[in-house]
Amino acid sequence: MNEDKKEKLIELIKVQGEVVRKLKATQSSKEKVKTKHLGREKDLHVLNDYLANASYLGGYSPTHVDSAMLEALNGPPWPCNVPHLERWYHHMMSFSVAERTALPASVLPTRLVALFATNNHISDLEEKIAEEVKKLLDLKAQLGDEVVPQKFTLKTPKGTRDYGPQQTALRSSVLEKIIAVFKRHGAETIDTPVFELKEVLTGKYGEDSKLIYDLADQGGEILSLRYDLTVPFARYLAMNKITNIKRYHIAKVYRRDNPAMTKGRYREFFQCDFDIAGQYDPMIPDVECVRVVSEILRSLQLGEFVVKVNHRQLLDGMFEACGVPADKFRSICSAVDKLDKLSWEEVRKEMVEEKGLAVCAADAIGQYVCLSGGIELVDQLLNDEKLKKAKSACVGLEAMKIFLQYCNIYDLQKQVKFDLSLARGLDYYTGIIYEAILLGEEPGDNSSEGIEVGSIAGGGRYDNLVGMFDPRHKNVPCVGVSIGVERIFSVLEARLSAQKLKIRTTEVEIFVASAQKNLLEERMKLCKLLWDADFKVESSYKRNPKLLAQLQYCEESGIPLAAILGESELERGVVKLRDVESRQEVEVARDVLINEIRQRLGTKSA
Amino acid sequence: MNEDKKEKLIELIKVQGEVVRKLKATQSSKEKVKTKHLGREKDLHVLNDYLANASYLGGYSPTHVDSAMLEALNGPPWPCNVPHLERWYHHMMSFSVAERTALPASVLPTRLVALFATNNHISDLEEKIAEEVKKLLDLKAQLGDEVVPQKFTLKTPKGTRDYGPQQTALRSSVLEKIIAVFKRHGAETIDTPVFELKEVLTGKYGEDSKLIYDLADQGGEILSLRYDLTVPFARYLAMNKITNIKRYHIAKVYRRDNPAMTKGRYREFFQCDFDIAGQYDPMIPDVECVRVVSEILRSLQLGEFVVKVNHRQLLDGMFEACGVPADKFRSICSAVDKLDKLSWEEVRKEMVEEKGLAVCAADAIGQYVCLSGGIELVDQLLNDEKLKKAKSACVGLEAMKIFLQYCNIYDLQKQVKFDLSLARGLDYYTGIIYEAILLGEEPGDNSSEGIEVGSIAGGGRYDNLVGMFDPRHKNVPCVGVSIGVERIFSVLEARLSAQKLKIRTTEVEIFVASAQKNLLEERMKLCKLLWDADFKVESSYKRNPKLLAQLQYCEESGIPLAAILGESELERGVVKLRDVESRQEVEVARDVLINEIRQRLGTKSA
Repeated sequence: MNEDKKEKLIELIKVQGEVVRKLKATQSSKEKVKTKHLGREKDLHVLNDYLANASYLGGYSPTHVDSAMLEALNGPPWPCNVPHLERWYHHMMSFSVAERTALPASVLPTRLVALFATNNHISDLEEKIAEEVKKLLDLKAQLGDEVVPQKFTLKTPKGTRDYGPQQTALRSSVLEKIIAVFKRHGAETIDTPVFELKEVLTGKYGEDSKLIYDLADQGGEILSLRYDLTVPFARYLAMNKITNIKRYHIAKVYRRDNPAMTKGRYREFFQCDFDIAGQYDPMIPDVECVRVVSEILRSLQLGEFVVKVNHRQLLDGMFEACGVPADKFRSICSAVDKLDKLSWEEVRKEMVEEKGLAVCAADAIGQYVCLSGGIELVDQLLNDEKLKKAKSACVGLEAMKIFLQYCNIYDLQKQVKFDLSLARGLDYYTGIIYEAILLGEEPGDNSSEGIEVGSIAGGGRYDNLVGMFDPRHKNVPCVGVSIGVERIFSVLEARLSAQKLKIRTTEVEIFVASAQKNLLEERMKLCKLLWDADFKVESSYKRNPKLLAQLQYCEESGIPLAAILGESELERGVVKLRDVESRQEVEVARDVLINEIRQRLGTKSA
Repeated sequence: MNEDKKEKLIELIKVQGEVVRKLKATQSSKEKVKTKHLGREKDLHVLNDYLANASYLGGYSPTHVDSAMLEALNGPPWPCNVPHLERWYHHMMSFSVAERTALPASVLPTRLVALFATNNHISDLEEKIAEEVKKLLDLKAQLGDEVVPQKFTLKTPKGTRDYGPQQTALRSSVLEKIIAVFKRHGAETIDTPVFELKEVLTGKYGEDSKLIYDLADQGGEILSLRYDLTVPFARYLAMNKITNIKRYHIAKVYRRDNPAMTKGRYREFFQCDFDIAGQYDPMIPDVECVRVVSEILRSLQLGEFVVKVNHRQLLDGMFEACGVPADKFRSICSAVDKLDKLSWEEVRKEMVEEKGLAVCAADAIGQYVCLSGGIELVDQLLNDEKLKKAKSACVGLEAMKIFLQYCNIYDLQKQVKFDLSLARGLDYYTGIIYEAILLGEEPGDNSSEGIEVGSIAGGGRYDNLVGMFDPRHKNVPCVGVSIGVERIFSVLEARLSAQKLKIRTTEVEIFVASAQKNLLEERMKLCKLLWDADFKVESSYKRNPKLLAQLQYCEESGIPLAAILGESELERGVVKLRDVESRQEVEVARDVLINEIRQRLGTKSA
């Protein structure tokens, strides 16, 4: 294609693009498309065929076209076999009405316009838009590969985000503090692949398995993205026959959950785990995990917190004592787990109506799960007539007693609270379980003190998980804790933004500036000298930058010092050193420059 | 199921497992299965149906059963439509004969045994094995979920690996040094999701696009794992309308390549990129990238290295001057790129025979690509009659001249070599390109000095990539470098293992030990005291560990100090402090303990 023709085409595309944009603007200013009762088998098949190769009707993400179609359909049961339509329908129904209403505008694919046209339900405007879009696409097709037109929304995948310099800087500062605590306790670190053989994950997450991201079968192994760091850790131990290790692992995990990004819930998010594996004496590693949590939360200055603790064997014994059938232990346990969000009445209803528990059993449970306290509560329960008869309740209570005694030694008695309503969702816990909860938003904000603002760490003992991977089912007892770093990032981001603070995203110590033109090479020479002396140095990438622009950059970026070169300074063998904050300048001889800078930076950081 | 029945079943499974194992052993000691000319349509359909839901015939990874089947088939063209068989066939053919021969043993699925039986090609042994395996599976099925038997090989996905504590410690120390250099040059860091919308990656990697990992379509967006960090960086700039930034990004990327793990090539591997984006004056950021590479390689003490540089516009001009048609520039460029691995004769053959270049054009190129040197070579080429006529050659040479002048200022003249054979594979480079190559294996090994042992970093200018993402094709000029950290890890791992050195994987400073029984709580108290004073402290997780075992652990782990408690010490209010290396012990009063430890650690680290 010659340049003339190309330019003409590009011009035409621009004009046609404008036509489409205007039509779409008109459309979104009107009410959304009125289309009702699309139900003929033929139409459903057209839709189904379309969805066989497309995720959504209006592009690669859901749009108002999907919502409009949803309203136009009668919904299941379908009169014929339309698996792709069904998949799309269920997916769309997983959004709330509010979410569906808020979807962005888009245009119905030409193939589907006809479908509405025969039903006389399509608005003229929609049809017109589709027509003009087709024209636009035809024009673009003529242009071919010469300029690749923007065909997709420029975005990160649903439920994910980029971390910009500010966010990575905050994240690094948080993780550094956390890692310092892990290291203070002698932990090593390991790393595992981001994906695992699908079978490694199978059967580990119960109902949540549907949230696992699978990789496409491209001929080879069947793979899935890791869902947490615990299962890969257990796989690592079994595979390498490691029987004791204390390790931390900070990495991203993946869950195809409905993201609530405003609440800091993402599909790709960091987990930060600390685990102690090995056959040791009761509760010694367990209590160290809680000590680690406590040191981390203090070091991050997140404010007051409480660590609720309970024991899985005590829970089982309590269920037994209350007359819960053994096969209902796990499902009743997961009902108890909801007590942090639901009232006892609601949880009781779930137990009785959904899970078929006898009313008297539920009420008996209700007597226990309202209890919380310290070591005196353990003693009280050890004398409880009902619990006394359940062996595992006694085992759990004795363990809890040792645990709370150790807590006193580690100075955790003020934070730790024995709480019989704590259950933790995961199936694989076998002993102590705990969860750290922040109280109030701000350390200084006394009014909200004592209000639980959310779980910030949690964990427990899981003695049987490694055995699931070992060919001979050889177990390695483990206890660990997961720090809710995403929540911590959110809390600190909110705090910074409330205080209108910015974090420095670089560590530049000195900026090499020039006061006149044609000093690029002199600036470069000085940069080299300072880099060689291990200073963090920047200079403008322009040949002749303006002095004011250079100094402004220093002030905005929080760079403490500027070294300013001018011809007179060069002649006299000196450099003008400027304290950026105070704007004071002094002349320093070249041969003492490095020492002078070192001293000034030393004073600043001290 | 009651315990008795369960135990009996487990016993039966063990016995039956033994039967299967013995049969398989017999089989693998014999020749591999003799089966020939399986070609009836019916048989092919059976195979095709099986492969519709399975990646391989013998499990989740290729086995000798796949190789045997491959031999038994006549191969394409197939007499009927068998897409799954075809997919499997192509995949199996992608292995070399040697690889196929080396595949592990496994057993043919029962469904496929019949297929061979009707052909009378199946060995009795295979059939017997399948029978016994079926019995085994039936037994296991009876056992149900009570004990989940190990059904899969315990491994990480093909081409991936775990990093153990030793490897992560080495990796961290390398990355710390690299990051220190990036920070010395004022870089920020960002992070992007591990997957991108598939369209973001489409059309960026040419032929290599087939190596992209796709995620399964689970109803939603179509996603792929990132293939490098450059394309996500460009997408990030366009999406956030960022016109200038200097950032580094260290993260894992994914390529479904045939892994050569012995050579340190993996399917999941780290990339470590430093890029400067923004509209600046020529060559100033470009030369800083090379300076960064040079500082990094020095800081890692990897030995001597050379940085080859060239310019894409000079290459284009050279091709033009040599009579290469414009539409062949890129393919001839990728042929030149092979000169680091192939001889000129081989590359010339590829140009002429495969890519249809005229012999005289190829020979003309041959005259140039053997040239390398410094600034004097630029001057020589600026006077070259042929090149003079090609405008972009002159532009490239002028740019190269400035670049080499700046190299002198940054003290890079000894490492940087202008080399006309350097082409770099990627299509998106538009200006300067460079590649750092290690010379010799060991700094002290003079015999191998000067031998190129491999590329360790590379990069260049890419001014048009961001525009591919911007709706209005607005470009942001970029130049960057990628540090080959995986290669660096391999080199350093090999060096450590040759010197039989181990890196410490923890930073524990003091171990709290006990000399007698029943001192657990005293040890815990001392740990708390030392943690509170910010020391890195460990103690045994056993109630009553043996003193010798505790001291041995200190020596093996390289912990510098041990604090030893005994009843007599407790009574007298002292602690026995042991220097682990010298084995010298002194008694220290409790009230000066922290100061004493601080002093001793200070002396040790100094």
